[in-house]
Order: sequence, then structure tokens, then C-alpha cells
Amino acid sequence: MKSKKVAIVGASGYSGEILVQLLLNHPHAELVAVTSRQNAGQTLAQVFPKFASHPKSKSLRFSEPKAEVLAKQADVVFLALPHGVAAEYAIPLLDAGAIVIDLSADFRLKSADIYKEFYAHDHPAPDLLKKSVYGLPEIYREQIKKSLLIASPGCYPTSILLPLIPLLKSGLIKSTGIIADSLSGVSGAGRKAETDYLFCECNESVRPYGVPKHRHLSEIEEQLSLAAKSQVQIQFTPHLIPVNRGILTTLYLAPEKHFSTETEMKSLGEKISACYKKFYGNEPFIRLLEGKNLPDTKNVIGTNICEIAWRLDARTGRLIVMSAEDNLVKGASGQAVQSMNIICGWPETAGLV
Amino acid sequence: MKSKKVAIVGASGYSGEILVQLLLNHPHAELVAVTSRQNAGQTLAQVFPKFASHPKSKSLRFSEPKAEVLAKQADVVFLALPHGVAAEYAIPLLDAGAIVIDLSADFRLKSADIYKEFYAHDHPAPDLLKKSVYGLPEIYREQIKKSLLIASPGCYPTSILLPLIPLLKSGLIKSTGIIADSLSGVSGAGRKAETDYLFCECNESVRPYGVPKHRHLSEIEEQLSLAAKSQVQIQFTPHLIPVNRGILTTLYLAPEKHFSTETEMKSLGEKISACYKKFYGNEPFIRLLEGKNLPDTKNVIGTNICEIAWRLDARTGRLIVMSAEDNLVKGASGQAVQSMNIICGWPETAGLV
Amino acid sequence: MKSKKVAIVGASGYSGEILVQLLLNHPHAELVAVTSRQNAGQTLAQVFPKFASHPKSKSLRFSEPKAEVLAKQADVVFLALPHGVAAEYAIPLLDAGAIVIDLSADFRLKSADIYKEFYAHDHPAPDLLKKSVYGLPEIYREQIKKSLLIASPGCYPTSILLPLIPLLKSGLIKSTGIIADSLSGVSGAGRKAETDYLFCECNESVRPYGVPKHRHLSEIEEQLSLAAKSQVQIQFTPHLIPVNRGILTTLYLAPEKHFSTETEMKSLGEKISACYKKFYGNEPFIRLLEGKNLPDTKNVIGTNICEIAWRLDARTGRLIVMSAEDNLVKGASGQAVQSMNIICGWPETAGLV
Amino acid sequence: MKSKKVAIVGASGYSGEILVQLLLNHPHAELVAVTSRQNAGQTLAQVFPKFASHPKSKSLRFSEPKAEVLAKQADVVFLALPHGVAAEYAIPLLDAGAIVIDLSADFRLKSADIYKEFYAHDHPAPDLLKKSVYGLPEIYREQIKKSLLIASPGCYPTSILLPLIPLLKSGLIKSTGIIADSLSGVSGAGRKAETDYLFCECNESVRPYGVPKHRHLSEIEEQLSLAAKSQVQIQFTPHLIPVNRGILTTLYLAPEKHFSTETEMKSLGEKISACYKKFYGNEPFIRLLEGKNLPDTKNVIGTNICEIAWRLDARTGRLIVMSAEDNLVKGASGQAVQSMNIICGWPETAGLV
Repeated sequence: MKSKKVAIVGASGYSGEILVQLLLNHPHAELVAVTSRQNAGQTLAQVFPKFASHPKSKSLRFSEPKAEVLAKQADVVFLALPHGVAAEYAIPLLDAGAIVIDLSADFRLKSADIYKEFYAHDHPAPDLLKKSVYGLPEIYREQIKKSLLIASPGCYPTSILLPLIPLLKSGLIKSTGIIADSLSGVSGAGRKAETDYLFCECNESVRPYGVPKHRHLSEIEEQLSLAAKSQVQIQFTPHLIPVNRGILTTLYLAPEKHFSTETEMKSLGEKISACYKKFYGNEPFIRLLEGKNLPDTKNVIGTNICEIAWRLDARTGRLIVMSAEDNLVKGASGQAVQSMNIICGWPETAGLV
Repeated sequence: MKSKKVAIVGASGYSGEILVQLLLNHPHAELVAVTSRQNAGQTLAQVFPKFASHPKSKSLRFSEPKAEVLAKQADVVFLALPHGVAAEYAIPLLDAGAIVIDLSADFRLKSADIYKEFYAHDHPAPDLLKKSVYGLPEIYREQIKKSLLIASPGCYPTSILLPLIPLLKSGLIKSTGIIADSLSGVSGAGRKAETDYLFCECNESVRPYGVPKHRHLSEIEEQLSLAAKSQVQIQFTPHLIPVNRGILTTLYLAPEKHFSTETEMKSLGEKISACYKKFYGNEPFIRLLEGKNLPDTKNVIGTNICEIAWRLDARTGRLIVMSAEDNLVKGASGQAVQSMNIICGWPETAGLV
Repeated sequence: MKSKKVAIVGASGYSGEILVQLLLNHPHAELVAVTSRQNAGQTLAQVFPKFASHPKSKSLRFSEPKAEVLAKQADVVFLALPHGVAAEYAIPLLDAGAIVIDLSADFRLKSADIYKEFYAHDHPAPDLLKKSVYGLPEIYREQIKKSLLIASPGCYPTSILLPLIPLLKSGLIKSTGIIADSLSGVSGAGRKAETDYLFCECNESVRPYGVPKHRHLSEIEEQLSLAAKSQVQIQFTPHLIPVNRGILTTLYLAPEKHFSTETEMKSLGEKISACYKKFYGNEPFIRLLEGKNLPDTKNVIGTNICEIAWRLDARTGRLIVMSAEDNLVKGASGQAVQSMNIICGWPETAGLV
Repeated sequence: MKSKKVAIVGASGYSGEILVQLLLNHPHAELVAVTSRQNAGQTLAQVFPKFASHPKSKSLRFSEPKAEVLAKQADVVFLALPHGVAAEYAIPLLDAGAIVIDLSADFRLKSADIYKEFYAHDHPAPDLLKKSVYGLPEIYREQIKKSLLIASPGCYPTSILLPLIPLLKSGLIKSTGIIADSLSGVSGAGRKAETDYLFCECNESVRPYGVPKHRHLSEIEEQLSLAAKSQVQIQFTPHLIPVNRGILTTLYLAPEKHFSTETEMKSLGEKISACYKKFYGNEPFIRLLEGKNLPDTKNVIGTNICEIAWRLDARTGRLIVMSAEDNLVKGASGQAVQSMNIICGWPETAGLV
């Protein structure tokens, strides 16, 4: 299988670090460049002592991020940059023929207006919004294959969209009244030196934030609307909990068809089960839980897997769906590598198991 | 102020430990007996090294729990026992004239049938259900004053009922469709030697459990129904998170009156604000958050305070209410002491600040 | 008892926060001023939501730190400032007649030369070094009574000096070859927005730092030398562990008298036990552990207590002494309040139990 | 490369779980049996939901541990059993021609008398003590190649022996007065339902234990004595800290040759550096830290790597050596797999990177 050269722009954050780890050990990708303004000149081993045992860690040095240089070095470039900055790199890289996999929010929305509403500045490259593909492989595998610009989904959106899209596409739930209650580990906030994310501020603490209008709502609702073929608005509440990694999402849903008897509940349950099996039965990175098992972030940490379980509540008539993922892997870097594998024609699980 | 003698039955669990701490330092209560089958004969200092600096810790010894003995020793007896066992002690203690404050679920429900439905055995003393008062002082202060048997509320119920009851009583929200999503620290599971609660099973883990029908639903729904004056059923999902103490609850509610314009939202907001101020403006243990503040368990740990904040979401038309409490204090032992203070005619905050 | 007005300069760090908590609830001290450049103008309730239920929290506002203003407002001023900055405030405050209790390292050393060696700049007020008293009440109670300038000890020094000084003064151990291995919670690093202390950098991590010459060595060795009446040099290794609060120190010591038989060991053990009882038997804030108990930070968190236990090792001929304290209370703010109580003639435990 | 069939006896504990993970993904070993009394009959997926995405997890079932059956199924058998029990399985398995890799302490000592002294019962198979090889590959690689019975080292011993043996063999340090201060994550206590290891008992707690004579001393001292060619006794203090995985050891050592000048220190430093490079410069699983780096457990978690750093202290004349490892990988299961790789003639890093 033909290997490709890859680069990471913004490799010193948490997503960047996981990308480095995955790409150092990828069977077909060759990591040729990592950039970081702050660490330019230092080796991988110096910035990340944990990678020091890898043969490449002492030769590969962080460089200043320069699009023109990167375009010459690499076939595939991952952008792990803040919103708004990523677009600046994507344009010249695409022009120079590179495949761009962007982990920021810059190309996730189809509408530049909604981008402005949620990110409070004009979109830096509205024309590219038509070209980008939302990098959720389980939903957009065919489009990803043919794309040169992947907008890799956010961590919260992944944990919400993967369990919801099959139900909406199958018409099993109403597209109104959806509630997503999410719990995220602290790495979701990035490696930023802010008081709020100090150990002593997070340990022995649980707190909601960004209520009621978190930025990720924009891409969640756009994707749900596409699945439901109607405008969807949801309620979304993120909470910060004291773990390094992991997102647990609990979804409160109204089945399209009312159920009250045991028979009706059983019948609906079979439909839900069949729906998930149809969509995800063969997906290597979705784990449909069976029996009494419920999702637990500790069972997915370090993997590219999203766990999904559901329960019908005969008392309230609701469907409760729960998911767990590693916010830095399936919720960020692992999923980005999965998209790269698809684009490059490699096995989708290459470097991810 | 006249002091009283108090005893704790089942003093070696987590709630028991907090009761010991609060009562050792209470200005009017004198702790005269602590019981524990397992630790009988040992001093407080031996069982709880952390209390070893208290003058009483070397003289006060754990004894076998015997109702007749306790009735002679103490004016007030706290029962920190498992469900089903508490009732066995309450009957003889009440007969002997003691005030009983029960931290178990045994006397929280008015209906023996619902007790059986949720706890899977016949209620051990159905006659007492009429005599007990649900020990939520902010709601039942007057009844507590005159009662001899307090059923101190559970930790989840406290975090859900305190924010909800004012809204239901004021008719500001619909009594249907209520969703309570709760996150609890591990001490909520008690000091039980079970694999599920080992450090390595809880640390770096987040997980839902008891979905969709947790036992606490029974008392939550009974109390909400009383407040709403109609039958209320809610959706309740507890999650286990890696902190020692604390519960964070997020409530998803439908305002009785639809709002869509800015003006309507402002007007509704003022009503909600006024409602909470009316009910809790003078409550020493409710903290209504203002401005941008949202509840954070770290701000209530070790206190008897419940924090409450709310947000209206113009996009979805919902009201989001969030609360935080220390599950072992306001959610258990602190609240029980608060009830004792009321019954005994002491300042309600005695020993709690 | 006559009350006094107190102020805290630098009240927004972790030590400052504990000082606020202790002084808000102190029976004889009245907190009249809190300063913080960053938070000037905001109320206590705004900066620390956890204090919002205290009646004073909405009236007391943070101000800019100005020595002349503080000198008029307060009888006692606590300085919770960085090294080097504290001295600037101490001079005018002392001139204006205030009692100054400094939590920084500025006045802990008797020698301006050693200060320069360890802190890398000239001492800002070398004359005051003669006037300051090292605020370890168990050792310097009489001197503290008469002092106007207290140099409150560091967190590591407290955990090392309290167990060592009695043994050195009694001549039970050699003053050479002492090793102190300490483990500290992350609050010891202060509320600084530095990447190293982010939740994800500390959680699931244990690491030594400052090896082999940590700044606290200077005051530790000066105090040990005074106790031993000879020049003492020790080995000290601090480690960072993922807890909010607490220091656990393990000391490796050589008994002055060799022991090899059971009888010799028993005899030496009795001397050690008697030594500690003589020094600390009546101390309210020292807990000498008995039987099989070993120190555990969770038993001292939130208290002003230092736990001490020891073991003789017949195999190696060594004495192992272990101590535990809350770095922010006995290791900082609680101990500072203890000194204030002594100076002001209040019960030494006032506001600390 | 010829593959082999492997079995794990006692696969449901923490070491067992890591063995399962490593062997499921090993390129040359085929996991054919896992045993557990408690879970017999259940699939791997049922007992460990985290492995549910592995193709084998639904076909491989836990069985009752029966030596005769295992001997027929597997070429290599890992024993992850309590001390004393492992020997019962080793005897028949060896008789039947299997390679046995034992993770318990049963075959780590050469002397049955010392075993009895430390483990308080007669050794169950003293004859086998001569045949077993201590499975520390960096030290006993040649012996491991030819052995059929590997006594895989304990977690604390590994973290102490790896940094010490080169120094002792090179005569750079004295063999007397060695102190090892170790900090271990809670998984070291095993998956045992004991109150001491509950989340709330370990979180926000740090404590020493087993002072002064921990069982692991026996194998540590036997191995050090072999390296030093003289009887070595050390001081060893383990501490429990709130992390899932990881051991950090700090060693206090006396260089054989006194140093006091800069030149002497530099010269000694070069010898230490050369010594470690000679022993470990080409070892894939030892990382000699350079520059300012100190060991940090977070940099080795999930890997088979042991990090080592050292500092000379000119003030005290001591050498401080620090090491970090994952107690479940290099300290247990990873190291056991490393030994298997050596015995089977596979690349030593197979399945470990």
C-alpha cells in the first residue's frame, strides 16, 4: 500500500499530541512535519517526553507553521488550530494540492451566516464551505472518499450525532424536543493556561457551562436537520467533570410512535435495535451495548470507539440514549485519522486499533 | 438554651461520619451514643482517626445498636441505616418517647404500596407513614416543628425538589415532561466494599446507572405531585462521577406560559426570579446565584447549602434550572441536623455554619 | 475579649482564600479589608461564590493594596504575597503600628546572605530579619507573644520541622544524614495560570521536582540547626501528587544510639514516645498517632492539625517518622491565624476548630 | 515466525486484564484460554466490555482453572494468581511441558526460608526455586531464553532494581544505607472489594503503609545482593496515592567515591551517565532522561517503559535516582510478555509498542 507524507499544524495541544501519537505509529502515513510557534526548534522528544522512545522523536523538530513549506513537505496536512486561524492555512494548502483535514470548526457549517452567529466573526473563506465534507465517517463515508477538505467534527457533536442520526433517518423519533446532556473531561478545554482549568479548580468539582447556547450547537443542529430533512433545534447542556478524557452524553427523546403496553414497548424496542444494527452493525468504531451494559467512558478511553446504549421508559414514554467516547480520539484526532484512511484508500482502521 | 442528648444508630457509614462530625461540634446537642455492629467496643478515635483530636473521641465508644438502651440514653436518635432496617428501630424508639430522625427511605413515602413497588418488600411499619414528616425544612418547616418522626430526604430528591417545588407551586412550569439529569459523587453509594466503587473503577470514569427507574423516583414524584396538586411523573437519570462528594442536577422544564419575544422572556424571567426570592430569599441554606454564576459542587462541599441557578432558552422555549449540593450534608446529614434544630427550638443554623 | 480589625493583602490566591474563610468565621477578629490588584472593586461574593452566603460577602469589596490605607483600617495585616513583594508592604505597615503576619518567605531567614543564595535577589529589608519571629507556635510560642512581625512558615518546612525538632532537641537522633521525602497537593503551587498545573497535566501523574535544591531548604536547615545547635544539612525531595490539598512527609533518620536487640529497640521506642509526649502531649494541633495508625492526609484536610507517627526498623537501625498536614491550613493560613491568636491574647484555637 | 498458543490463569484482576489486552493484540501469540472461578462461563466481552470490539471477545469464554486442561490447550501459561496459589498450577503445567510465566511472588526468591519469613507459610514447591528465573529481561535476558519457569518481578521491585543494579554492579555506589521511597497507584492493590481501596477512601488521600517491612523487600534485597555480591539491606517505604496506575520511586544513595569539588562532581556524573548508557543505552524499554527532565508517571502509563533520571547533590554528597513505570505494564504484565517474547524467540518488543 502506498504510503503518504503527513504534517500536523498546531501539534502541541491535546488534539495535536494524540495526532502525533497516532501518526507516529501509523502503518501507511509518514509524519514529516509538526509545527508550533511556541516550540519551534525543539524536537518531539523535548516537547513530549512520552514520545522520546520513538526512533523519530529526536530527529523530528517542531517548525514555524508556514503553509507554503508544508505544502511541499506533505501530502496530507492536519490542522489542529483555533477557530478562525485554521482557514488561513487551509486555503494555500488546498491551492498547492494538499489534502487538508481540519479539526477546528472553520469548515463544519454549510452556512457562513450561522458561522457568524455562533463564532462572532465573518467566515474567513466562505467559498470553501461548499467543498468541505463533514468528517463523520459512519455517515459521510462516500463523500469523504472524494473530498480534499475534511471538517472533522467536534467532540460533543460526535457524541450526539452518532446516536441520533440513525433514529432520525429511520423516523423512529420526533425531531422536536430533543435534549442532549453532556459531561466532558477537562482536556476538552485544550492545553490553555487558564485559571478555570487548573487542577484545584476542576478536581472535586462538577459544573455546567455555556448554558444555554454553546457554539457546538450550530454544527449539531445543521447535521440533525440534514438527517431529519427538517429544521431541528435541540437543547444542549455541557458539564465539566474531573476526568482527563471522555465524553458521556445522555439523550432524552420522544419516539415517533406512542407506546404504553408491554407489547408496544417490545415492538418499538425491536425497531430501535434493528435500526442501530442496520446503521452500525458492521462499523468498526461503534459499539452497540447489549444486555444490562451502559456506556462508561473508561471503556473507550484511548480508543476510537463510540459506545451506544438505549432504554425505553414505559412510565414516561421516552427513549433514553446514552453514548460514551474519548473526546480526543473519536471526538477529535482518531476520527480525523479515520477520515484520512478513507481518503487515502487505506483500511479504515489503520493505525487506530 | 436547653441542650439535648443525641444518639446515632449506624454511625460508621459516610452519612454517619458526617453526623458524628456535626454533632460533636453542635452547640446544643450532646452526642452520647454511636452504634455500629462492626465496630462495637472501639472508640470514636479508633474508628475515625480524623476525630481523634476531639476531647470526646477517646471516651465515646461504639456500641451494639439496641433500641431500648438508646431510648434511655438519648432524647433524639438519628437512624443512618439501610432501607427496611431503620423501621425496626424507629418503632420502639418512638414508643419510648424519643424523637427519631431517619435518614433511610423507610418513612419518606405516604403510600405503603408505592414503597413496595420501589423497594420490593412490604413496608415494615405502614402505620407510621401517617405520622412521619418529610424533612425538607424549606418546604415543611411548620410540620417538622410538631413532629416526632422525621423522614429525612434522599440526596437526589433534595437536589431536585428544592429547585422544582417553588416553580410548581407558583404554576410557572408545566408539571408534565420534567427531566432531571443528576451527577453524583461516589460517597452516594455508601461505604460498601463493592468492586464497582473501587478507586480504579470510578476514577477516570463517568457512567449513568439505574436507568430508567431509580428508587428515589418514588419520593421525588410523591413530593412533586403534592406541590403540583396533580400526579407528576418525571424522567430521572443519575450518573456516577469521580468526586468524593457533591450532586449537580440539571432540570429541563417547560414554562406554563409560552415565550418567544425578548419582552416575554424578560417578563417570565422576572416572575421566576420573584418566585425563588419569595420562597428562598430568606433561607439560610439556599443560595440563589446571580449574574453569570452557575452552580459548582466545589462551592457547596462541606456546607449545608443548595445552590440554584436558572436560564431561559429563547431558542427552545425551555427553562433550565441547575442545582448543586453536598450529597452528605444538605443531601443527608446536614439536613437531618437542620430538622433536629427546628424540632428542638434551636436556631435552625446551629452547628451548621 | 477585645476584638481586632484584620486585613488580608493578596486575598485571591489559595492561602488568601483560606484566610478569608478562617477570618470571616473568627470569634474575635473582624475582617475589614481584602486586597487584590486583579479583583479590585469586586465583592467577596463575586470573587468567591462559596462565601456568598456569609452576611459580609456582599458588602466587603476587594481593594487595591495600599499600605497606608490598610494601616489605618486594620490592627493586624496578613500578607499573602509572593516572595520579595511582601517586604514592601511590611515596612510601612510596621511603621504605622500594625501587627504583620507574613505568609511569604521574606522574613523567615535570619541571614540575608542565605536569602540571596536561595531567592536570587538581595533581601529587601535586612534590618527586619532581626525583629521577625518564625511563626511555628509549638516551638516559638513565647517569642510570638511579644512579636509584631511574624514570618509564618512554609508548608513543607512545617511538615518537616514539627516532627524533627523534638528529636533533635532531645538528642535522640543524629543531626547528619537526615532525609525528607515530601508529597504535596497541587494547591501548593498557588492559583497560577501555568500549563504545568492544569488538571490534565496533574491528574494521573506523579512527579518529583526541584531536585536537589528546593528553596524551602533554607528555612528548614536554619531551623534544624537552631534545634540541633549545630549546622544541619538535609536531603529534601518534593513530589507533586494529584490531590487538591495535603502534604505527606516521610523522614529517614539515624537514632543517636544504636539499637539491635528487642530490648534496645523497646527502650529507644519509649524514649521517642516520651519525647513527643513531652513536646506535643498538650498541643491542640499536633496529633500523635498510636497503635497501627499511620498519617493520612484525608484525616487532616480542612483542619489545623499535623499528624505524626513513627516506626523503628530493627533491620536497618533507622527511625522512620511520617507527618501529614493540610498545606493550606497548618502549612499556611491556619498556622498564621494561630500566631495571631497568640499575639492578641485570644485562645490559641479560636476560629480554628 | 511460528506463533504459540497462550493461556491466562486468573484473568479477571488488573494484571490479568492487561495481559488479556496485550495478548489479544500480540502478533505471534494466540490467546486460547482465560480462566476465572468467578466468571467461568462468561465471554471476554461480558466480563470486560472494553474488549467487546475485538473479534475474539465474543467467542473466548472464561473457564474454571484446571491445570491439566490448560496444559493441553496452551504452549505458554501466564499465572496471575495470589501468592501461594500460583505454585499449585505451576507444578502440573511444567510437568506437562508448558512454559510458565508466573506473576505472583511464588518463584521469585531463591530461598524457601526467606519466603517463609516474608509470606508466613511454607513454600509450596521449594524444588522449583532452583529452576525459576527472575524475569527482569534487562538483567537476566540470557537466562530467560533458556528457562521454562519465569518468576516475573513485582511492581515495586522493578522500579527499584532497574535503576540500582547497574550502579551496584559498577561499584559506583555503596551497598549500604540505600533508601527507596515509592509512590504507587491504587491498582497495585488489585481488584479486591476492600473498604480501604474504595474511591472515597483513596481520592484526596495520601498515605504510607507497610512500614517498615513490606513483603517485596525480600525479592528486592535478594536481587540487590546478587548485584552487589554482598548482603544488602535497604529501607523501603511504599505510599498509596490517588492515581489508577503508575509507580514513582525516589532512591537515596551514597556514591562509593566522595565528591566535593565541581570537578569531582562532574567526573562522577560522567561515570554514572556512562554506566547507565552501557547497561541500558540499547534497551527498548528503558528511557534515560536527559537535561532537566525528571520522571513523571503520566509519560509511561500504558507503556512497558521505565524512565530513569538522577541528580548529584553537592551539598549532601548523595546521589538521587528517580524512576517511573506503569505498575501494571513494566511492573507486571508487560514485563511478563517481554519474557515470553524472549523465550519464544520473537522480537522482544512484539506486542509491546
